[in-house]
Amino acid sequence: MRRLSVDLAGRPYDIHIGPGLLDRLGEFVRPLRPSRLLVVTDTRVGPLYASRAQAALQPVAPTAVFELAGGETGKDMRAVEAVLDALLAAGADRKSAVIALGGGVIGDIAGFAAAIYMRGIRFVQVPTTLLAQVDSSVGGKTGVNHPRGKNLIGAFHQPEAVVADTDTLRTLPPRELSAGLAEVLKHGLLADADYFGRIEHDLPRLLACDEQALTEAIARSCEIKAAIVARDEKESGERALLNLGHTFGHAIEALTGYERWLHGEAVGCGMCLAADLSQRLGLIARADVEAVEKAVAAAKLPTRIDGLSRAAALESMRGDKKAEAGEIRFIVLERIGRAVQRTVPSDALDATLAAGGYR
Amino acid sequence: MRRLSVDLAGRPYDIHIGPGLLDRLGEFVRPLRPSRLLVVTDTRVGPLYASRAQAALQPVAPTAVFELAGGETGKDMRAVEAVLDALLAAGADRKSAVIALGGGVIGDIAGFAAAIYMRGIRFVQVPTTLLAQVDSSVGGKTGVNHPRGKNLIGAFHQPEAVVADTDTLRTLPPRELSAGLAEVLKHGLLADADYFGRIEHDLPRLLACDEQALTEAIARSCEIKAAIVARDEKESGERALLNLGHTFGHAIEALTGYERWLHGEAVGCGMCLAADLSQRLGLIARADVEAVEKAVAAAKLPTRIDGLSRAAALESMRGDKKAEAGEIRFIVLERIGRAVQRTVPSDALDATLAAGGYR
Repeated sequence: MRRLSVDLAGRPYDIHIGPGLLDRLGEFVRPLRPSRLLVVTDTRVGPLYASRAQAALQPVAPTAVFELAGGETGKDMRAVEAVLDALLAAGADRKSAVIALGGGVIGDIAGFAAAIYMRGIRFVQVPTTLLAQVDSSVGGKTGVNHPRGKNLIGAFHQPEAVVADTDTLRTLPPRELSAGLAEVLKHGLLADADYFGRIEHDLPRLLACDEQALTEAIARSCEIKAAIVARDEKESGERALLNLGHTFGHAIEALTGYERWLHGEAVGCGMCLAADLSQRLGLIARADVEAVEKAVAAAKLPTRIDGLSRAAALESMRGDKKAEAGEIRFIVLERIGRAVQRTVPSDALDATLAAGGYR
Repeated sequence: MRRLSVDLAGRPYDIHIGPGLLDRLGEFVRPLRPSRLLVVTDTRVGPLYASRAQAALQPVAPTAVFELAGGETGKDMRAVEAVLDALLAAGADRKSAVIALGGGVIGDIAGFAAAIYMRGIRFVQVPTTLLAQVDSSVGGKTGVNHPRGKNLIGAFHQPEAVVADTDTLRTLPPRELSAGLAEVLKHGLLADADYFGRIEHDLPRLLACDEQALTEAIARSCEIKAAIVARDEKESGERALLNLGHTFGHAIEALTGYERWLHGEAVGCGMCLAADLSQRLGLIARADVEAVEKAVAAAKLPTRIDGLSRAAALESMRGDKKAEAGEIRFIVLERIGRAVQRTVPSDALDATLAAGGYR
């Protein structure tokens, strides 16, 4: 097991990473001395793990379980209100806590409900997807979608602890494991070349859910994200580096109706495009681009998605919330292991899209 | 004009108090350099003041106005979602700000909407009732009711500034002015005997909306509340003193269906009961109780409400969120100008209720 201390907003919390942690939830939650607990989960994760979580927590405090219908389409205020109702039904008071058991969507909904129940009660993240373990567990962002846009309603609310049980990744569909690896690769690419090399080497073990390899990768990824977020808690500057591959990725998701590709898959492809763009800007060598593509492919992620419209992609990227005043700012690679923010000339962007199979 | 600096949660803001401030809103909001502004108000205050507020703000940033249907019954998530929709319709982004123009309910709803829009945007309070000017402007509490209880959903979100225009109190129904004075008297009673004496002396001028008297009273009341809240930002201890008269008051409100008496009226009567109880506990003299009753009566507030059920009052007070484990803790007076928290023997409480006209 690895334990990582994250200090954001002046209130440190621990991330516990390793196998077999679900059955040890009680020891991580006990220090909170909660009056009651509500495990919030969904219909996919609940049947697999909720009763084990409840059994581990029951000795700490009376523990109820609430199951939300899964899927991003349900990440809205209705879901939050359902959790608030469940908290009231469970008799939760200001000293109670929420346990978010599931992927990033569950963490977002349950964390936001905790943020606004009685003006804020505590919550513990128990992420059960690789993406949530390396990404959503750090940063304190909670919230839901509005019909007019994603994540428009929410709050910054730091968890009291994060418990990432690597065993739960064994029940993850292989595509979702790969999608999580996209973020892991991203952390290496943008901040730590040695780590990028290590992930590349470990990819077969990671894809086979090797405990040791997963524990090391999750810990290092959380460390990198926490360091960046700590330096920039309100997303004014450096935090933008975490969007490496995301401007391209969001366009891919938007152009394919958010259904064909998982977020991590779109980001995988987006990182290849960002690498290509970086080379066209004279920042990295062709061999570096090929190294990125090779790693993305080895993680079983798409390196190119042919046939999307170049014009539609440009329009989508201009409308992205990371765009400012019409100009598109991209996160590009200065070298493998170091990302920077740049405003990009349109001919370089055009060339990258053309080379990437856009028409 | 008086300017008061409040430093809570490490981010100080100013409270501006005096006549004619509504037309000067622009100068208080300009330092925020907002991208856009949304004035949130209700159907009572909007027709009186919204267009003047808008005219004062328009030179600072494009300003839209959104009018909510008034009344506490509308203080729910539906109202918050309506404000969120209005923010989106107005094109508000992370650099926009909300202007809450109205009483405490508007401040609660608009402040909470600001707290969760894009994970928190800035807001400015422009309270137009005396109660909101002396009470809701300090403390950072925002939120709405749930069908199962009051203020169950919310957030701590400090305003960037508070602008209390004493002229707006001239359009306030006299009963609401008196209800606000209940909180003013309360601040004197619990923290500052000199101030209590001054208010008593100034009551005729306060009831006649004398600018000078109002400005002084609002400033001193905000100062007292801010000092208490600053010492206890999360309501664990000292903040409870602000509930002087409120345990009795909440019971009166509950027993009369929240319709017969305004909150401030119930608190006025509640302070008389708290004074009587304090005397029965041997803390203050009968003359002190009479001084409290005299001041409450002079503010045109009820000093006693006959005929309520003693058993129902006790049950309501036990169920109040300030009750812990069956025992009822009361805020009582150690002397005029100093309140303390006490667990009260039931015979003293019974005697107070009987003397207060309960049957």
